[in-house]
Amino acid sequence: MTTDMLLEGIHFDLSFTTYYQLGHKTVAVNVSDIFAMGGIPKYFLLSVGIPKNSKPGDIDDLYSGIREASGRFGVSVIGGDTCASENGLVLSGTLVGHADKIILRSGAREGDNIFVTNTLGDSAMGLFLLQGQGSRVQGTVRRNRNGNLRFKNLNSRHVLTLIKKHLMPEPAAVRNTSRITSMIDISDGLLIDLSHICDESNTGAIIYRDSIPISRELSEIAGILGEDPMRFALTGGEDYALLFTSPSKFRTNAVKIGKIIRKGRYIADSEGRKMPFAAEGYEHFKIKY
Amino acid sequence: MTTDMLLEGIHFDLSFTTYYQLGHKTVAVNVSDIFAMGGIPKYFLLSVGIPKNSKPGDIDDLYSGIREASGRFGVSVIGGDTCASENGLVLSGTLVGHADKIILRSGAREGDNIFVTNTLGDSAMGLFLLQGQGSRVQGTVRRNRNGNLRFKNLNSRHVLTLIKKHLMPEPAAVRNTSRITSMIDISDGLLIDLSHICDESNTGAIIYRDSIPISRELSEIAGILGEDPMRFALTGGEDYALLFTSPSKFRTNAVKIGKIIRKGRYIADSEGRKMPFAAEGYEHFKIKY
Repeated sequence: MTTDMLLEGIHFDLSFTTYYQLGHKTVAVNVSDIFAMGGIPKYFLLSVGIPKNSKPGDIDDLYSGIREASGRFGVSVIGGDTCASENGLVLSGTLVGHADKIILRSGAREGDNIFVTNTLGDSAMGLFLLQGQGSRVQGTVRRNRNGNLRFKNLNSRHVLTLIKKHLMPEPAAVRNTSRITSMIDISDGLLIDLSHICDESNTGAIIYRDSIPISRELSEIAGILGEDPMRFALTGGEDYALLFTSPSKFRTNAVKIGKIIRKGRYIADSEGRKMPFAAEGYEHFKIKY
Repeated sequence: MTTDMLLEGIHFDLSFTTYYQLGHKTVAVNVSDIFAMGGIPKYFLLSVGIPKNSKPGDIDDLYSGIREASGRFGVSVIGGDTCASENGLVLSGTLVGHADKIILRSGAREGDNIFVTNTLGDSAMGLFLLQGQGSRVQGTVRRNRNGNLRFKNLNSRHVLTLIKKHLMPEPAAVRNTSRITSMIDISDGLLIDLSHICDESNTGAIIYRDSIPISRELSEIAGILGEDPMRFALTGGEDYALLFTSPSKFRTNAVKIGKIIRKGRYIADSEGRKMPFAAEGYEHFKIKY
């Protein structure tokens, strides 16, 4: 079982996302959590707090997105709670999955290889573009009459690909999990989520910087904007790719990006120079509770 | 499985409730839903959206209330999601229960008796007092230096009993469910929740007004305030008593308040005069979606 909450103002901004996309994402982020344990998603419960100023069509669109995503991932929506909200849209999903063998974060062993199942940083760059962050982005973002975003000097197909990765993540399961020792989905960023595996497995890790898969879209857009794509890939988050470990000689389509070591956490460059890394990425609370 | 969301400004007001009481209530309202299906509560998932201005002690208190209630009801807290909130405190609980035989809302049959397991209207009067509603209440409510409420001319033990029923509901299961044909917990008010049973069972119902159990506390306080206790009992809500139907000759400690009939929904007075009733009580959306 997994549960994930999406709050307006924290997880999404209704000036960027449609209700349909939000409905999709609410299902997708929970599906990603079940995939991360080697499970098959089954039953979904959704609680919605609906702002009093929302339109009936908005909620229809939200449920269309939920139906589309639940259909695609083979999930049955079996219940939930609907209430009014004084303070923005609130979405809380709970998903039940099934697994013959559950994969935890705690099984990584020294010598295991580290893999990721997809390119990293696309979603974070999509958000960066939507928010008009960065000095060069600011000059490129426009809204046309219909309120749609337009980006000057940027390949619009690439921009849309990156934005879509942010707004409508498409988690995918790993097919053969027999020799996977630990797994997590990358929601807070590679460095944070790999740190969770290290913490719970009581190991260290080394990442080969040049092995981290970066999409052509991220690479080109970051280049034009004068941004380092690696920053997005390492700390961006919301990739909903899977990060897993496995003993060597495991056959997989996933990309090998590093190795589990006994102690310490490092990023190595092409010349083998090692830099220690901290668990940087999205943190909900900067103060300590 | 059941899920219930509590939103600041809709379901609670932090100037009335402590975080400890809220933690208790979050568990209790979900436990009530499992009891309403004849189930035993088992596993609880809690998602919390924490306002950025909340204090660490607040969250400790919240979790103390959750631990207290989950301990009392034999529930294991197995996970959840914690995030920051821009818009007030958000609590979303999901509870898994177990039942050998699930009791639905749809099994009521013509001739069944209607029962409730506890006095009704206490919680609604507790809220009424907390909110200082009603012309006579306004004159009675005071806050002392410590911010605690004081009520002039009202029996303070009675006031506290009613307020506690609102802030810390104590759901209780029906022990012998073998002959129960339908069941629901009273969260939105007797008339609404009985209407749910009638809708789903495709029946009518008649309530005997004089049989509805009213506590001495509600009766006395309502009398002093010049309010009709029956209004609180019929439409108040948040009683978290169970409302169930059963064929005649079922032995139970619950109070018989009416009968399932073929068609129509009525309240009958002591002289047998019947008044039709509508599903009145707490509605989240006055507009139709």
